[in-house]
Amino acid sequence: MPFLVNRRQIRIEWGDCDPVGCVFESRVFEQFDLSSWMLFQAALGVEPSALAGAFDIIGIPLVDVRARFLAPLKFGDTVEIQSSISEFRRSSFDVAHRFLRGTDLAVEGRESRVWAAVNTDDPSRLVSRPIPAAVIERFKTP
Amino acid sequence: MPFLVNRRQIRIEWGDCDPVGCVFESRVFEQFDLSSWMLFQAALGVEPSALAGAFDIIGIPLVDVRARFLAPLKFGDTVEIQSSISEFRRSSFDVAHRFLRGTDLAVEGRESRVWAAVNTDDPSRLVSRPIPAAVIERFKTP
Amino acid sequence: MPFLVNRRQIRIEWGDCDPVGCVFESRVFEQFDLSSWMLFQAALGVEPSALAGAFDIIGIPLVDVRARFLAPLKFGDTVEIQSSISEFRRSSFDVAHRFLRGTDLAVEGRESRVWAAVNTDDPSRLVSRPIPAAVIERFKTP
Amino acid sequence: MPFLVNRRQIRIEWGDCDPVGCVFESRVFEQFDLSSWMLFQAALGVEPSALAGAFDIIGIPLVDVRARFLAPLKFGDTVEIQSSISEFRRSSFDVAHRFLRGTDLAVEGRESRVWAAVNTDDPSRLVSRPIPAAVIERFKTP
Repeated sequence: MPFLVNRRQIRIEWGDCDPVGCVFESRVFEQFDLSSWMLFQAALGVEPSALAGAFDIIGIPLVDVRARFLAPLKFGDTVEIQSSISEFRRSSFDVAHRFLRGTDLAVEGRESRVWAAVNTDDPSRLVSRPIPAAVIERFKTP
Repeated sequence: MPFLVNRRQIRIEWGDCDPVGCVFESRVFEQFDLSSWMLFQAALGVEPSALAGAFDIIGIPLVDVRARFLAPLKFGDTVEIQSSISEFRRSSFDVAHRFLRGTDLAVEGRESRVWAAVNTDDPSRLVSRPIPAAVIERFKTP
Repeated sequence: MPFLVNRRQIRIEWGDCDPVGCVFESRVFEQFDLSSWMLFQAALGVEPSALAGAFDIIGIPLVDVRARFLAPLKFGDTVEIQSSISEFRRSSFDVAHRFLRGTDLAVEGRESRVWAAVNTDDPSRLVSRPIPAAVIERFKTP
Repeated sequence: MPFLVNRRQIRIEWGDCDPVGCVFESRVFEQFDLSSWMLFQAALGVEPSALAGAFDIIGIPLVDVRARFLAPLKFGDTVEIQSSISEFRRSSFDVAHRFLRGTDLAVEGRESRVWAAVNTDDPSRLVSRPIPAAVIERFKTP
């Protein structure tokens, strides 16, 4: 059973581009981050700023991320970002992101994130927590 | 009596530049912010991350900022940033920043910041606090 | 006769915020920049990436910018950005930006920009050009 | 024979951090980019802004990048970034980056970049070029 795919449209803006007029890589990772928040909002109906409170976690920190740049994105390009969970594990999960310019796959990426809470024995450290089954259920598409 | 001037050298890097190869304005404001932190470190001998704890404040939030761009800064340009307090008021202060490329003044700016603590009656709000005389004294040059 | 006001809705996202959960100032200037591009698109019907070509200029570089932060914007806040030309001069103009959270004015700013072309005698330098009357006309509201 | 390792010291600054006071991921990729430019400067003695001209290329665009975040970096942390070529191929290469806080490995990453020129048949496209042997030689350590 596949997981929900969230779609967003963005345009590559002046402030996103480097001296050769192509998107600067850090902007792509900002879009990955925002796209993951918006995927959770789409699945759970919870605003990003309410997610931690709603599930008694500190957040969903990133532990591993990769991007492949297959075609240069330029100032003015319109892009559809498709994001979906590729795997849920006990207390972590992967999000796959694809940037499409028309039918061209321009960027392909994957984030691994942890369902994390504060360690009550040592508040300076995080601890992973099992992802609630009810959360995972909401990402499933019929 | 003039106030301490802190000097930093930076280089305009690839990731700082826009499609015409000039520094993107948001990068200038990031440098203003960092330069203010480093001015306080130079005067007080306190690292930025220790400033709030050392003076029982939440920080020095920005309330007003202006920049004039007098000459375009380009990829590879070496810049000296000169920062100094231009005025201390009871619970706020102004920081003047100048970006020099050689002897050319390329950017001139001014930040107004507040010496701020959490409002104990309403923790969601900040309240300004008098700047300690001992703090002001450390910015004075003989 | 007033000038066209362009309105955009944004949300303050995780990646826009500093360690006290308030918007970091450089993000505000990124929004000013994007809002000016979108105001020109609304008035002229020209995409940002097509503006230089459509009017035989290199762009509309920023020469002066100021922002006042009247209320802290926090993670999750929804903001309406209102942008309009406050003055056209012969070869430069001012854009006023207002960030409203509900009815609260949270940020107020002003950019001064130049209608600029490459200096054909010295391609490393820019030269200001008169703003075409037909451009100014498009910003006027009936 | 191992390749040259370039070492840089950075401090995690206020503007680098997210609402839980940890470095925001896009800043890590900005540091990867800058560290690669500085590795080339260390090996070749050529400033980043002079690299394209010196070797008749358009640059060294990124085609693949990955980062693993092993320990959270916080406001005020001092980090040593170690960067070195992990592999040279005919017209592309990999750069390995390690962020050390004391002896703790906090971030580990790898960029794949291409030695790229403009396609003279179609200036809107890039084409990879063989990396000159003299360039590779400069990264070798005795």
